[in-house]
Amino acid sequence: MGIKSDGMNYAPKGKPAPVVKKGEFVFSAIALDHGHIYGQCNGLIEAGGVLKSVYDPDPQKMDKFCETYPNVKRADSEDEILCDKEVQLVAGAAVTSERCSLGLRVMSAGKDYFTDKAPLTTLEQLSAAKAKVKETGKKYMVYYSERIHVESAVFAGQLIEQGAIGKVIQVLGLGPHRLGASWRPEWFFKKEKYGGILCDIGSHQIEQFLFYSGAKDASVVRSQIANYNHPQYPELDDFGDAVLVGDNGASHYFRVDWFTPDGLQMWGDGRSFILGTEGFIEQRKYMQLGEKDSKGGNLYLANNKEETFYNVEGKVGYPYFGELILDCLNRTENAMTQEHAFKAAELCVRAQMQAVKIA
Amino acid sequence: MGIKSDGMNYAPKGKPAPVVKKGEFVFSAIALDHGHIYGQCNGLIEAGGVLKSVYDPDPQKMDKFCETYPNVKRADSEDEILCDKEVQLVAGAAVTSERCSLGLRVMSAGKDYFTDKAPLTTLEQLSAAKAKVKETGKKYMVYYSERIHVESAVFAGQLIEQGAIGKVIQVLGLGPHRLGASWRPEWFFKKEKYGGILCDIGSHQIEQFLFYSGAKDASVVRSQIANYNHPQYPELDDFGDAVLVGDNGASHYFRVDWFTPDGLQMWGDGRSFILGTEGFIEQRKYMQLGEKDSKGGNLYLANNKEETFYNVEGKVGYPYFGELILDCLNRTENAMTQEHAFKAAELCVRAQMQAVKIA
Repeated sequence: MGIKSDGMNYAPKGKPAPVVKKGEFVFSAIALDHGHIYGQCNGLIEAGGVLKSVYDPDPQKMDKFCETYPNVKRADSEDEILCDKEVQLVAGAAVTSERCSLGLRVMSAGKDYFTDKAPLTTLEQLSAAKAKVKETGKKYMVYYSERIHVESAVFAGQLIEQGAIGKVIQVLGLGPHRLGASWRPEWFFKKEKYGGILCDIGSHQIEQFLFYSGAKDASVVRSQIANYNHPQYPELDDFGDAVLVGDNGASHYFRVDWFTPDGLQMWGDGRSFILGTEGFIEQRKYMQLGEKDSKGGNLYLANNKEETFYNVEGKVGYPYFGELILDCLNRTENAMTQEHAFKAAELCVRAQMQAVKIA
Repeated sequence: MGIKSDGMNYAPKGKPAPVVKKGEFVFSAIALDHGHIYGQCNGLIEAGGVLKSVYDPDPQKMDKFCETYPNVKRADSEDEILCDKEVQLVAGAAVTSERCSLGLRVMSAGKDYFTDKAPLTTLEQLSAAKAKVKETGKKYMVYYSERIHVESAVFAGQLIEQGAIGKVIQVLGLGPHRLGASWRPEWFFKKEKYGGILCDIGSHQIEQFLFYSGAKDASVVRSQIANYNHPQYPELDDFGDAVLVGDNGASHYFRVDWFTPDGLQMWGDGRSFILGTEGFIEQRKYMQLGEKDSKGGNLYLANNKEETFYNVEGKVGYPYFGELILDCLNRTENAMTQEHAFKAAELCVRAQMQAVKIA
């Protein structure tokens, strides 16, 4: 169940690039339901954060976490962490439908919150989260890993900012995932808990669209879900796709699915095609199809001057985490604005709510 | 203006694979407005057809054609060809909006018709074409080149038929093209004539969806057009995309655009992703992005057993043309059914008619 078979345990390690001195930024982890918590903690630790303590009601999950991070303190309760004045931020990867309520408790305790995606599953949760941010001044930040923890995705953002493909007119994302039903937790198959495929793995896609296109808002003009081939899991969407149109005219299509076949070397051949007025970018994020033991971090740029392949594995790093730590310390919004994090969350919930079931 | 800069002159040459003896199948060409006529003629000649004569009112187009096919007879009028009892089929690449009226004349003259895509631009033309087929018993066949004249596309069909990816649940196509505005004819920028981007280059995509998924009909559930960056050509759609849902539950997304940048080695990096219940296929039809002087004909197969790359250039050939000749001689429908050809035509017209202009 390593990275190749299991997107749930995708937790890249980067080079340490601390933005603070040791002890300047202390965080803890609460709720280990999704393996993304390891990616969240790795990112913060590499950026100089100190992981102080952890709590989850499941001792097995605690055991595994404490083995991975031997210096972490095993807290006896969530409250122990929430009452710890030294802890500045809580990272969490709860069951998706519980992520907001955890966040409300974290922010009420005067700490910033850094949750796995999707950060919430309903518009009611979104309202509560927005109100709590307003009330407390704390952050509700999100681990949209398929952009912030993928080097090609970071590099794509840098190229776009430099004008390499002109104005972005469409972002097209493919987010296939391996189901691996046998080792998935039960909540993974309950729609009320995982939020539906467009909310769950769709949230990565919509966040990327907003980021790359610069759209501040968007309309979901068509969204679809299906259960094409898993009648044994009636609440599983094994397929979903959507079309969005941004407030700046840019458009977005994404497809997500649980159909990665067993013969594939990786849990999913994630792609992103970003079309601009002056060129385009393709990302092959995790692998090169048909090439044995291939690398991730592949980016192709074609514009009016060149057609170039870049492998950026180990070269770009993950600036999000350091920026997030500094944002928490300085109350800035360089890693990601709260508005952006919530807008992506809102749109993935709307895409799911409006979805037409086609199979 | 060779193949690399100019999709309009995409006219692949295959190995001769005659299905008839010399003289058993005689055809002519009328209307040389689109360079696809060369692909149409090459395919039929390689399959054993004899190209007897040609007519176009433009002497320059006739000159070029007669240079390419030195044995062809230069007819003085369309009627000369239509009255030639020896001619069994007329191939045509008229201005898109004129393709149907030419077809009606060809079928009325007792000959089968083989037109470039899109085969028509309105539902009224479609009705007239259907009525004429019924009245005459003749064929109105279509050169959907991005499937029938692309070896990876033919091979994909064979793999799907063998069950290599299980049941097809989605076909996703990217059909970028280089605009090359300076050498395009005037009609190319008049919507009434070219039919709009979803009708024109979208027709390739919808035909592939129907073919690979086995859907007999489909609904266009969302379609969009835009002119993002060509205000000097107000009737040009430089971008279009659409979502279709097949009558068998399979779904389809395609994007077409005129944004291939000058730095790209090819007129377009056409792709096709076919997702099945047991695996998927990606085609990189004309090139390998980022690889200098790359080949076309690239197909990737991943299923529960394997992840394999195939380059099929020169290996698969173009069986459509031989099947078409035999269909004409035997009044069978092995190359393509009339129903399929018309359904693809209908859906691309509907996609265009329903399109929301997003920019």
